[in-house]
Amino acid sequence: MYKNIKVIAFDADDTLWVNETYFRDAENEFAKLLSSYETANKIDQELFKTEIENLTYYGYGVKGFMLSMIESALELSNYQINPKKLEQILNIGKAMIDKPIELLDGVEEVLEGLQGKYKIIVATKGDLLDQERKLEKSGILKYVHHVEVMSEKKVADYKKLIKHLDINPDQLLMIGNSLKSDVLPLLELGASAIHVPFHTTWAHEKVTKEQEDAAEYKTISNIKEVLEVL
Amino acid sequence: MYKNIKVIAFDADDTLWVNETYFRDAENEFAKLLSSYETANKIDQELFKTEIENLTYYGYGVKGFMLSMIESALELSNYQINPKKLEQILNIGKAMIDKPIELLDGVEEVLEGLQGKYKIIVATKGDLLDQERKLEKSGILKYVHHVEVMSEKKVADYKKLIKHLDINPDQLLMIGNSLKSDVLPLLELGASAIHVPFHTTWAHEKVTKEQEDAAEYKTISNIKEVLEVL
Repeated sequence: MYKNIKVIAFDADDTLWVNETYFRDAENEFAKLLSSYETANKIDQELFKTEIENLTYYGYGVKGFMLSMIESALELSNYQINPKKLEQILNIGKAMIDKPIELLDGVEEVLEGLQGKYKIIVATKGDLLDQERKLEKSGILKYVHHVEVMSEKKVADYKKLIKHLDINPDQLLMIGNSLKSDVLPLLELGASAIHVPFHTTWAHEKVTKEQEDAAEYKTISNIKEVLEVL
Repeated sequence: MYKNIKVIAFDADDTLWVNETYFRDAENEFAKLLSSYETANKIDQELFKTEIENLTYYGYGVKGFMLSMIESALELSNYQINPKKLEQILNIGKAMIDKPIELLDGVEEVLEGLQGKYKIIVATKGDLLDQERKLEKSGILKYVHHVEVMSEKKVADYKKLIKHLDINPDQLLMIGNSLKSDVLPLLELGASAIHVPFHTTWAHEKVTKEQEDAAEYKTISNIKEVLEVL
């Protein structure tokens, strides 16, 4: 099934290392800071709405998240917020950037097993600086040919990636935790994909049951199974 | 001199299109917003200091600039700033992202002339999303193989780029407006570079007279001269 594969692309956040958990924690801290203005639930909803509205401006990653927290805080407080709290919001973001890297179980083993047999890249829609820093901290840089930062992970973006890599679609295998971003668009292009779910998924990454049922891809529960599959 | 060249990499901001001018305008608006707290000169200095301190966190680009403006505004006002002004700062940033693209004179002509003879890429340290959007707005996407986003433009980063492109250093020609980022590191690696100065240079991009004198590279006053040189 995977006999033509030349390039294996790994999603980064929540595929190689823990990420979404840190966003959930940051959202909780944010809700606590603003608890005098609204309920935690309302604050969560407003922040999510602001993030989605700002996606076309900021794209994905921590910096856009920080800017959306600031904007939401201004609005939720009806511009009454104490500027000191805005400083705390900036600090929540900086602390996220400073977080140590927690590799997911089996990642290093898999990369070591694939090394030399395939060109291994990381394909992410986060910030380049942030992802490069994480790769360096993680100690797995030695296995990775390079990092591809994608502004989006839709069919057109993977088309560009395949052109850029100078390969045919059937020579690419993507491995990632998001059905919407790491699996479905690849199948549409005739590339391969393996789904490794993470325990938390950002609402924006969720797909409908119909989309999920229609697609043909492999789901594994631990990334180590990649070695058996290939 | 340039007979081995296979890949020509163009810097984006202030090489292909106007950019620094928009940052200068934004800084002026920012200084006006805070004029009740400090002189314009002091505000400029503090913002620059904050940007440089935050480079390791945020890297380059509009989003980091916005976050640094927020942080500076909090500090310069001693946390007394009206939250409405912070909203205006967010709007200054969003307006920068929305700016139309003003191609510099000769850019399209040069890209058309080089098309088919070289692989043309854009090598930038801005935000990917922002640069891709600018390329699309600019109408020159058709000439460009892909965009390389670099977290920094130092010798090690160009080494990575050359490895990623699977070429030798002498097959790469970089064309850009920053001596520090687009010229000197390439010469150190044995690659080629052409300098096309823009009328404004961000303080962080300036080099000393000694660095400038020691290097061997061509300076042209209009990008069109690239066609004569090659």
